[in-house]
Order: sequence, then C-alpha cells, then structure tokens
Amino acid sequence: MADKPVDVAYVAGNGLMDRRLFMRTLALGAAGTATGIAAAQSVSEGQPEWMLVPGATTEDYGQPSRYELERTKRWTVPPAGQAATGRSIVAFTPHHLMHGTLTPGGLHFEVNHHGIPDIDPDRHELIIHGLVRQPIKLSLDAIANYPTETHQYFLECSGNSGRLWGPEATPATLDLTHGLLSGSEWTGVPLSILLDEAGVLPSAKWVIAEGGDSGSLSRSVPLDKALDDSLIVLYQNGERLRPGQGYPMRLFNPGFEGNTSIKWVRALYLSDKPAMSRFETSTYTDLMPDGKALQFSLGMDVKSVITRPSNANALPKKGVYEVTGLAWTGNGTISRVEVSADGGKTWGEAALQDPVLPKMLTRFRIPWEWQGGTAVLQSRAIDEAGRVQPTRTELMAARGNKGRYHFNGIHSWGVGEDGGIKHVYA
Amino acid sequence: MADKPVDVAYVAGNGLMDRRLFMRTLALGAAGTATGIAAAQSVSEGQPEWMLVPGATTEDYGQPSRYELERTKRWTVPPAGQAATGRSIVAFTPHHLMHGTLTPGGLHFEVNHHGIPDIDPDRHELIIHGLVRQPIKLSLDAIANYPTETHQYFLECSGNSGRLWGPEATPATLDLTHGLLSGSEWTGVPLSILLDEAGVLPSAKWVIAEGGDSGSLSRSVPLDKALDDSLIVLYQNGERLRPGQGYPMRLFNPGFEGNTSIKWVRALYLSDKPAMSRFETSTYTDLMPDGKALQFSLGMDVKSVITRPSNANALPKKGVYEVTGLAWTGNGTISRVEVSADGGKTWGEAALQDPVLPKMLTRFRIPWEWQGGTAVLQSRAIDEAGRVQPTRTELMAARGNKGRYHFNGIHSWGVGEDGGIKHVYA
Repeated sequence: MADKPVDVAYVAGNGLMDRRLFMRTLALGAAGTATGIAAAQSVSEGQPEWMLVPGATTEDYGQPSRYELERTKRWTVPPAGQAATGRSIVAFTPHHLMHGTLTPGGLHFEVNHHGIPDIDPDRHELIIHGLVRQPIKLSLDAIANYPTETHQYFLECSGNSGRLWGPEATPATLDLTHGLLSGSEWTGVPLSILLDEAGVLPSAKWVIAEGGDSGSLSRSVPLDKALDDSLIVLYQNGERLRPGQGYPMRLFNPGFEGNTSIKWVRALYLSDKPAMSRFETSTYTDLMPDGKALQFSLGMDVKSVITRPSNANALPKKGVYEVTGLAWTGNGTISRVEVSADGGKTWGEAALQDPVLPKMLTRFRIPWEWQGGTAVLQSRAIDEAGRVQPTRTELMAARGNKGRYHFNGIHSWGVGEDGGIKHVYA
Repeated sequence: MADKPVDVAYVAGNGLMDRRLFMRTLALGAAGTATGIAAAQSVSEGQPEWMLVPGATTEDYGQPSRYELERTKRWTVPPAGQAATGRSIVAFTPHHLMHGTLTPGGLHFEVNHHGIPDIDPDRHELIIHGLVRQPIKLSLDAIANYPTETHQYFLECSGNSGRLWGPEATPATLDLTHGLLSGSEWTGVPLSILLDEAGVLPSAKWVIAEGGDSGSLSRSVPLDKALDDSLIVLYQNGERLRPGQGYPMRLFNPGFEGNTSIKWVRALYLSDKPAMSRFETSTYTDLMPDGKALQFSLGMDVKSVITRPSNANALPKKGVYEVTGLAWTGNGTISRVEVSADGGKTWGEAALQDPVLPKMLTRFRIPWEWQGGTAVLQSRAIDEAGRVQPTRTELMAARGNKGRYHFNGIHSWGVGEDGGIKHVYA
C-alpha cells in the first residue's frame, strides 16, 4: 500500500485531488509501483535474448508489435475474416487500451452498411449536379489541385453508446459502449469551394450526398452546414484515406453524426428539400415516447467518458491513480470536465490537455486517491455553448426508452472494495 | 489554360498571391480542373463494377488501400525483406505523397543502427541508477500508473537533408532529402517524475540513456533538458509505440536530434559528465572546416520545405496552384513562413494552419499563379526565437563543406517552361 501523499488538496469527495497538484507529490503517492534495487546491480546483468542478436530489418509500411496485434485491435462484427452475408459491418475503437487523443487508421471505428468497395482511385469521380448553374465532375487529381485545409476532428456514430439505453448495465468493455468514436487529422478541400465551382442556385437548400458503395448510401446535409466547414477529405493522419474511411474521398461534416459524412462520395445533388433516404428515416432517427421520431438530429451533443481506470484494468492496491478520459462536443470546444468519485454527489475539475480543439477529442485528467472503499467514478463535460452532459436519468426523462441513438448521458464505473471495476447505472 | 483570377493581389514576384486571397477567387483561377457535364447526365449511368457487388468486410487492424500500399510507402535501406548484414537500417517518410502534419505509424521514419529488437513487453524494465538516492526499476505496468501527458511533436534525424551538403543538386524525391522527419502525437510520463522517484543527487549533470537493442545505443542528455520536457513515451498516435519507434517504451526529447530520443530505453544513468558514446562522437557531430567537430549540437534549428509541388508532380498547365509545405523548429513555435517564386529575390508570407504547436510540424500554404515561365520556389521559416532559416550559401559559409549533419538550409525547386520540376541549388 502506498503512503498517502503529503499536503494533498482534496477537491471533492472520496479522494479526488486538485488537478494542479504538484507532480512530485502525485508521484510520491503512487510510489509503490517503483521497485528499489541495489546500487551495485549492473544494467548489463541478465541481458534479455533480444539484446544478444542483431535486430530485424524494417518494412516499407510498418506495423504494430506482434504483441499489440494480439491484444490492441478492433472488435469487429462479423468477426474478421467471416463473410458479412448482407449485414452491416462494424469495427469498434478500443479506447480502454489506448491513450492520447488520436486514433490510428488501423483502429478507427467503422460502420459499413454495404461493405467496403474496392475503388480504383484513377477511375473514381465526384459529380456535383442538381440546382447548380453548371453541373461538373471532378477526378481525384482535379480535386487535389484545389486549396486545402487540415483539421483534427472527432467522428462519432450516433449509434455510439446505444446499449446504454438498455435497462441493465453491461459487462462489455469500453469498445462496445464508446468505440464508435475516433479522432483524426483530416485534410481536404472545403466543400464551399467545389460548390462555388458548380454555382449553387438560390433555390438550393440541401446537399444530398451519395456514396460509391453498392448500396449508394445517401444522406441530406443542410446547405448552410455544407458551406460552413464541410470538407471533401482526401487524407487522414497524413496519408490517403483508408478504404474503411471512404478511400479515395469522403464528405466530412465536423461535429455531425458520422453517417452524414458520406464515404466513397461520388455525387452531391443540390436540392430544395432533403432526400428522406433510408438512413435518415428508418435508422439514425430518435424515436420518442409518443411514437413519433425526431428528424435530422444531426449535431452530436456534449459527452465524455473515463477510459482509465475501466473494467479492463482493476486497481491493484490502494493509492493515487490518474483518472483520465475523453470529452467532445459538436458545439465547438470543451470548456470544462468534472469528475466525481462518489456517484455525482461532489465534483472536482479535471485538467484539459492542450491544445483543446473545436469538434475534436479532448483528453482530461485528475488525480484520485483510492482509499480502499467503494466508489463510483463519473465524468461530466460542459462545452462552450454552455451545454452540460446530462445524467442517464435526465436523458431518459427527456427522451424516453424507445431510442437507439444519440446517447450522451454520464457513464459510471463502479469500483468495489477489491479494486474490481464494472459498468453500473448510478 | 485557366483564366487569371480577377482582382488578384500579388504579394511577391513571379505570381505569388496574397495568402488571405478569398477562396472563391482562387477556385476560379484553378477552374480548368473541373469538367462541365450535361445537366441531364445521370449519376447512376455507368456504375463502376465496385458498386455492383456487396463490399468487403473489415479487419480487426485496418490497412491502407491496396492502391496506396503500392505507391505510398517508405523508401527503405536495405530494401524491405533483405537482411541488414550489419548495416544501419533506414526508412524515409514520403512527404511528397502525404498531406497534413501528422505521420501515421506505418510511414514514420526510422534509423535503426542495430536492427529492431523483438521485445516482450512483460519482461522489459527501465532502470534508473547512478547519481541517485535510491536506484529503482520500473516495469511497463508500473510506468503506466504515473501521471501522463500528451503532446504533438516532430522528430527529425540530424542526418536529415544530409545529401544537400553535397556539391550537386539531387534528382531524388523528397523522401530521400527530407524524409528523416515525421510528426506524431506522443503520450507518456514526464521524465522529471521518474527521476524524482529515484532522487537525483546534486552532483548529477547528465542523463545517459541506454537502449535495449543489441548495440545498447547510448546517448547523453543534459539533466536540465531531462527535467524540462523529456518524456518516457508509451503511446504514439493513440496506440502503443511501434517496434521501430522503441516498443514498448522510448525516451523522447522534444526538439532534440532524433538519435538522443533513445528507443527501447532500458536504463537511465545519472552522471556528472557525458558518456562520450559512439553516437555522440564518431557520428552525429558536425565536422568544421578546421578539422575539429562541434559536440552536442542537440537542438534542431528552424527549417522548412515545400512538399507540393515537387519533382514528384509536374505542373500540368498554367494556372493557380497551392504551394504548401512543412516548417518546424526545436526552438518553440514557427512564427512565420515566407515563400519565393523567384529564387529568393522577393518573398510573400504564407498562411500557417492552426493550431501552430511548439516543436511540431506546421503546415504552410500560399496561392501561386504559374504564368508559364521558369521559376524557383523556395520557403524560409522564422521561429519565435527569432531564428531565420539560412540559405544554403549562408550555411556553407558558416559551417564549410565537411559536415554531414544538421543541414537546415533553404531548399529550392526549379520549375521549367514545360512545368517540369527538379531540385536545384539557387
């Protein structure tokens, strides 16, 4: 058992400490994790076998360690290698095994309703037509000659955390409850520039985007949004888009539900009304208690989740731990994240990792002394629009229990006296 | 040939335009790239074969498109799959094929002097010893329990651009001249916290870091730097470090030459003097005209390079192009990047992509109208310390022609009347 840090400033109940706590004090609290050794112990004693032979050469496209490929991977449905047989294909980002704010391409979440098309980039074209002065088509090379922008943005499926609408807390790990969320650097051409090329007519109010997948997945995007900050993205995290992210080009609507950011985009149709397509009617709409559905709940609301500790890593002993997680909002930047260790009775303010970027994941951290009793760890995000992440109870009161999408309620980790952790409703 | 944009504000000779140029004007200048089509042309005409069948399932660790794996890859020495036979192993980041500021793990540069060790993370330990109150050892799990930080930083080998010390301009693409440079998000534990655990004695002035590779590569880092912003890094771009980046842990010294950020780090020895190890004496030192070598040229200086256009993509026709590239400095943030189209006679200020982060790659952009004549494109970076990237001539005057490292001179692309581009000295 580690000694309690000296001069600790507690800021909330059940062991939460000041986020500005001097690092050295925090380290001393966690000191039980380092093992003292004899000064005379030579580093060269007992060299492991990997130091006794020359190492391996490198690859022209590198991969993770074979140890990580075993354990840090996406949960996929259907399992990797199995045919989809007409079902949607889903891959979840394993945030409980990750750290930082970015998601590498290999671990980015995917929801592919009609599989991943194998597109030849030299034959792919984007057509802009409908209520425009001059319909145009653009090859990949043509688009690459327009002015570009680079931004780091989160992408979240509105089905993320969908199982938290259910009546029972889940034993699943964080990938299955919060893994339809990722963060990337996206580089592309502002959609406003390409729309200007075609010349949008005054009667146009919606952009209906169509993908080059076998189901021609289509979504309607308000023209105001398209002219604001939407991009035609060609690069993700410095390299060309991955196939599961829309290679060779995708629409990207920052802060909007993921399904609107049409992958493999091949057509933009300017219209005076929305398409009322399958994925904006039969799915991705919020069914209310009265049996009617909200339409076009496009912007993602303020949300956060604690990624460590989690039910993937029990607490080995009493002492000081870093509680850390991710916060995000479709309404600009995160302005504040609060953490509770007593199920929401008292809250302490977490530190936010700079830079805090609009419509991007923000990493938060706060030191917490686990004193050996039970605890309920929660995080609550507040954004610059003043929106506050609701409790699950508040969310259910407003939206009922028929919904499947847009769950942004506070998530709870229950800590037992044995240090074990499980998801709870609290 | 595209028409010249209306109301263009030129800011420097040979076609450089105001970086704040209204996007629409710029798009009109480049308009020749979009192809007008008949309004009646249906999008569903001529669907490509990839839309006619259900797409592929996804993998539990995703990969780039097969088209990109063919062309967007690292130049490696020796070639991928060949044995190293005792040579150093090098992989170059292909910046001419990329965009944005980040480098995905698979394309990050590598210089491995003794190959890549195949380390079992559960058996790897970090020892801190020497001039300390209590020598300690830390497992990977132990380190993961300390407070963490996340930062985006560039990493540059001091051998980057080494061939530009040579007497002749090179026909090589940008990977071979500027590919020992990458940008990533790094997450780890501040080294200052771990040093506090061991208790650094007042007589200590240097931290001698030793890697777990078969050559035990060692470098000496000033204690002031180690206590300032050095990290023991566990995660890169959200996932665990890749093997070629030091899996399962590496030292990271922001803004310092890459070789000091010891990969596979297994020991930190606190000493009152530097080790004078092989890689800080026989290599990575700057040989001056008088035959003496500068020692410990650790901080990387201000530098920039134009990544597009480059000798990898000729200009297809006259018109407006975006000139874009990367700027970076070990001295904090980039404060300004200037671009010249006339070989340095006149300069226009480029736009910097937000956020501009300290010791990280900064993307710059400026519109340029190629009027069909010859041009010499250059970029010049200035950092917040007031340091200005020198011309190659200025650099050679100060350092002679015996050096192999720390080349940060201005790079030049010569544009011919046919739109072809090659590297030139200018």
